[in-house]
Amino acid sequence: MKHFDLLIIGGVAAGMSAASQARRYNENISIGVFEKSDFISYGACGMPYLISNLITDYKKLLAVDKNKYINERNIQIFTNSEVTEVNFKEKNVSVKHADSLEKYSYDKLVIATGAKAVIPPIKGMDSEKVYTLRNLDDGLEIKKYLELVKPEKGVIIGGGAIGLEMAESLRALDIETIILEKMDIIAAAFSEEVRKTITDELIRNNVSIITGADIQEIAEKENGMQIQYNGHIIDTDFIIASIGVRPNTDFLKNTGLNMTGRGAIIINEKSETNIENVYAAGDCCTVRNLITKDDVYMPLGTTSNKQGRVAGLQAAGINSERFKGVVGTQFVKVFDLEIAKTGLSEKEAAEHGINTDSAEVYRRSKAGYYPNAEKIFIKIIINKDDRTIIGGEAAGKDGAAQRVNILAAAITAGMNIEDFAYMDLGYAPPFSPVWDSLLAGAQKLLIRN
Amino acid sequence: MKHFDLLIIGGVAAGMSAASQARRYNENISIGVFEKSDFISYGACGMPYLISNLITDYKKLLAVDKNKYINERNIQIFTNSEVTEVNFKEKNVSVKHADSLEKYSYDKLVIATGAKAVIPPIKGMDSEKVYTLRNLDDGLEIKKYLELVKPEKGVIIGGGAIGLEMAESLRALDIETIILEKMDIIAAAFSEEVRKTITDELIRNNVSIITGADIQEIAEKENGMQIQYNGHIIDTDFIIASIGVRPNTDFLKNTGLNMTGRGAIIINEKSETNIENVYAAGDCCTVRNLITKDDVYMPLGTTSNKQGRVAGLQAAGINSERFKGVVGTQFVKVFDLEIAKTGLSEKEAAEHGINTDSAEVYRRSKAGYYPNAEKIFIKIIINKDDRTIIGGEAAGKDGAAQRVNILAAAITAGMNIEDFAYMDLGYAPPFSPVWDSLLAGAQKLLIRN
Repeated sequence: MKHFDLLIIGGVAAGMSAASQARRYNENISIGVFEKSDFISYGACGMPYLISNLITDYKKLLAVDKNKYINERNIQIFTNSEVTEVNFKEKNVSVKHADSLEKYSYDKLVIATGAKAVIPPIKGMDSEKVYTLRNLDDGLEIKKYLELVKPEKGVIIGGGAIGLEMAESLRALDIETIILEKMDIIAAAFSEEVRKTITDELIRNNVSIITGADIQEIAEKENGMQIQYNGHIIDTDFIIASIGVRPNTDFLKNTGLNMTGRGAIIINEKSETNIENVYAAGDCCTVRNLITKDDVYMPLGTTSNKQGRVAGLQAAGINSERFKGVVGTQFVKVFDLEIAKTGLSEKEAAEHGINTDSAEVYRRSKAGYYPNAEKIFIKIIINKDDRTIIGGEAAGKDGAAQRVNILAAAITAGMNIEDFAYMDLGYAPPFSPVWDSLLAGAQKLLIRN
Repeated sequence: MKHFDLLIIGGVAAGMSAASQARRYNENISIGVFEKSDFISYGACGMPYLISNLITDYKKLLAVDKNKYINERNIQIFTNSEVTEVNFKEKNVSVKHADSLEKYSYDKLVIATGAKAVIPPIKGMDSEKVYTLRNLDDGLEIKKYLELVKPEKGVIIGGGAIGLEMAESLRALDIETIILEKMDIIAAAFSEEVRKTITDELIRNNVSIITGADIQEIAEKENGMQIQYNGHIIDTDFIIASIGVRPNTDFLKNTGLNMTGRGAIIINEKSETNIENVYAAGDCCTVRNLITKDDVYMPLGTTSNKQGRVAGLQAAGINSERFKGVVGTQFVKVFDLEIAKTGLSEKEAAEHGINTDSAEVYRRSKAGYYPNAEKIFIKIIINKDDRTIIGGEAAGKDGAAQRVNILAAAITAGMNIEDFAYMDLGYAPPFSPVWDSLLAGAQKLLIRN
């Protein structure tokens, strides 16, 4: 049985971060990475832009060449190699290669198997013209279809971040685009005012939106597909289902590995699981919410990279490394709009028994008299009792999203609104009004007496 | 003797902020504002862009119309009215109007007289073709000269923020531009790498830079001016002197008002001076540096507005209002470059006995594969002993400056580099690499063992 001192399951963001960092800080251990697909170390978040042809060559999404890992970093990479079983007691894994089955033993293990698309149990959802967008294979398959067939009409099921990004991609290719959302609202993570802004932007870009759409059946017809929902029928050439994802951890069931009910591996700030010498990282894991202290499932690329880095360093013997958790920051570009959120929504806060107060403002991105200023919406949410900032949102152009990062820093640090409202943000006319939108919003929350 | 419950000396940023906020929270008091110049409530920071014709009409710089203050807000405004003396004991001020001298009594006083340009004692510096840029009158005078005479060549004395902005203005008008700086470096507030970037950008835009230039004499000639420095001579059509500013507080000397040696009024977080019922705000004041806890002279528009707001609210009886101080954030646009700084430089830290460590990185503004990514330079400085972030800089495009605001928030909150390096900044390919430049810089400062 071949042995790796460090064995990593999964070779995308989290897995390759772990491999690279482990090697960087430890030249002596043997490292092996097993990846189910053809590709390693790719920028999955770039796929909507690959599909829209903003990025023409998929190779640009590959962060590091595979051969470089092998030759320069002395990391062994096995692609098309699926780990089907882990024996935590014996410390080995079973691997299905393209044409063989093998076992490999390990000293330290990093599980970074990512997530897979949720497919709702609807008749016809398994049609091959219902695409999902999760792995680079998925992205390339969609791209190939769009280039070969040049379809005229597409339906996106799901109005979350990926659905919104895909709407932009399809419109860039001049494809008639419909978003079909089961809930009464799209972009449900955001507050009403931001959702309204997103809807306006979609409509401005000729995207149709159908909410409250409960799909009964999807049927392949001679020249495309038919979707039945609420008794209505839509014809379309193809469908992209972006309903959500769930952890790729089915093969780990009943192994004693600590997971949530939905199969997310629970890890701590060292990326350690409950099993000694077993780490996990990325979209197959939970992450600590720094505000509520809950371990939540919030799979995002930047978190994957952080968890992967810590897993790799810890596994390589760097015990000092810690990733304490997230505050829930999310950015999404919707056509020309920057949309961003951090912290808790008012609803989430209420669910955690937190009393909130909030303020919303529209301000310009630059001084009023400076040309080409854009409108920025800012929402700030505070804990009414201890006055700390716990959430915020932005929508607009010209730096709207980066402003939410300033809120994220304040939330991470536990800053109160009184200090934030007079914070020393930089000012010059090309960058903001003298009271930046963030300060203007915060000022509205001050109690003056 | 006419009486005002609240009397304000100075009607620009700080003074009008004080007046507006006092009125907003107190409808019953009488408020009078005395302004030496023709104009009130203008955006002084916009003047370089007025001169460059990016803003064509100076009226756009006037934040609120004078008549609106008088009629809608019931604030009495006296322009061309210079306060020449304050009698703190008797609680009255002497005012030189255009054609009369009057005295006015007050209950509460806000001093917001701003600053004036420093004119070094060099022969010929008092020539009328040596312009300074401080008040709107100054700006309009330069603009009028440039439009009437259409000069071909200008010299800017001083390579600080205003000098850099004015270089951009003059080049926009296709005027041959030279920056003459006494020190060996321009943009001395910034670190070496940023200064290099600024210099490159100036040269790319055909601005000549002469450093170490010790001016001996300025002489008016038949067709322009001659500057003698270090034994050399430069011919020029006009000169803009932007060497620095000092508080407009000469008329307050020997009154018992607590000021620094250089005449900056020392105030606390309520904008109170050492004299009861006397507040001060803006460029005539000190501000608390939150890192060093020193009261420093750092006159900036955004600080003026904050101090003015607090002075007005406090004077109107809102005792809860506090502006605790600044961390030294400064933004300046230099042609197409965003330049930003916050916190202490390594030199300033050393002067305060703080051991530092620092990291510098260049990263892209967007994901590597996303089109039109720009280069961003980030520097982060930490206190080596307690690991808190104490300073940082940025240079670049596409959101470089806003990233320094994230550092400013971290500094204000006392965040340590370990938490910052794994902070949950938003990510999507159009907004940043998966490890944003800030995180990449911070990661370099982590101690791994």
